[in-house]
Amino acid sequence: MPHSVTETPPATGLVSLVSAGPGDPELLTLKAARRLAEAEVVLFDDLASGAVLDHANPDAELIAVGKRAGRPSARQEAVNRLIVDHARSGRRVVRLKSGDAGIFGRLEEELVALAQAGIPFEIVPGVTTASAAAAAAGMPLTRRLTARRLQFVTGADVTGQLPQDVNWAALADPQATTAVFMGQRSFPALVAGLRAHGLPGDTPALFAEAVGHPEQRLEPTTIEALARRLEGVVPDQPALILYGPLALPDPVKQG
Amino acid sequence: MPHSVTETPPATGLVSLVSAGPGDPELLTLKAARRLAEAEVVLFDDLASGAVLDHANPDAELIAVGKRAGRPSARQEAVNRLIVDHARSGRRVVRLKSGDAGIFGRLEEELVALAQAGIPFEIVPGVTTASAAAAAAGMPLTRRLTARRLQFVTGADVTGQLPQDVNWAALADPQATTAVFMGQRSFPALVAGLRAHGLPGDTPALFAEAVGHPEQRLEPTTIEALARRLEGVVPDQPALILYGPLALPDPVKQG
Repeated sequence: MPHSVTETPPATGLVSLVSAGPGDPELLTLKAARRLAEAEVVLFDDLASGAVLDHANPDAELIAVGKRAGRPSARQEAVNRLIVDHARSGRRVVRLKSGDAGIFGRLEEELVALAQAGIPFEIVPGVTTASAAAAAAGMPLTRRLTARRLQFVTGADVTGQLPQDVNWAALADPQATTAVFMGQRSFPALVAGLRAHGLPGDTPALFAEAVGHPEQRLEPTTIEALARRLEGVVPDQPALILYGPLALPDPVKQG
Repeated sequence: MPHSVTETPPATGLVSLVSAGPGDPELLTLKAARRLAEAEVVLFDDLASGAVLDHANPDAELIAVGKRAGRPSARQEAVNRLIVDHARSGRRVVRLKSGDAGIFGRLEEELVALAQAGIPFEIVPGVTTASAAAAAAGMPLTRRLTARRLQFVTGADVTGQLPQDVNWAALADPQATTAVFMGQRSFPALVAGLRAHGLPGDTPALFAEAVGHPEQRLEPTTIEALARRLEGVVPDQPALILYGPLALPDPVKQG
């Protein structure tokens, strides 16, 4: 897969696949802020919008591509086409992706489209929402003796359901911290499986809503209590769920 | 655990536990750069040194605490004491930690020491070396159909050996991407276990040395070939190893 890594200002026609971080513009990297300031076109997701876009060049064309997890893949193909078409116009294109672009962002499909079109690109890594949620709660993601493995999973596959091929030995491990992305709807089903595979219902959990946004809300709880609360709830905000042997804050002060 | 989340300049005596990212100063967050510019004292790890420190206030006292994984815990207690003592002197203290501070950084011990001393703190999340390594190689960490779980582990426990309680079902999962931190010495032993638990020897791997530093080196390989190469090798650079169904670049261009 062709790609390029640049430290100098990017050439015309280069596509920068830029991680927006969790939403707080202060959690952009210096490189991401620079790429936004240099951009002529910014293609952004719903989740990467808001204050982060204040860093974009005032003359840049800002295009919402409105992609959300779980939509049909035709939507992704339209995004791929947009990126390629704008790059072919010779402009500096930033494709702004929420969190870290390489984690659950469908980055690969965009990379393949760029490679097939022969367009050079770079990936600018960023702060994943899992790191931001733990930091906001004042706790680490790993613990030296009790949480030596950290894993990231999604709560929904392309059909919007809990994936069929869950590795229960991995997910019900009492010695791992697990970050569940896009997992609100399926969390009750996930917890039923975790408990069936031996994970205690009082395992600590953190429900982190709108991480990095002004309306951020952190709820320290347990997997059992959270599963009960989310039963039948239609989410209105993106949320990340952490569970495992967490060093949960008590109480969580809101920033 | 008491903590605080601030967006305004930190009060005197606040300790900011700041993620330095992988080493490239462009991968600092805006918030991390700001905290370094405001700092009166910066306590930094070996791995968080170099160009990142150019962002520190020129008047700040820079103190290397020289912590490396695997040293006796007395060393960590000395670091804890230094942080607390400097905070008590009323100065703005930045504790700079490599990668993301919450991932394999022994953050918790420092948080506990601060909480016990009644000193307010904040955690500034950052870019983990795993995200930076994948981005530098031009590939995602997750893949929509083939790598839907991402896990981070260390290759060494406090004794410097492969941990005794490895969750082989999690680590030998052919559908997960695994990032092994501090895993060079024990990688041959890890791979022996992975193969015994069914993971094919030709599973793709990326050996990423000195990620984010000028001497960065990316080596696309397989777990079997890499284990053979690392047998008996004494590492002279920090390295991260990724393995799983990776979309490995071919060839890897160096930035």
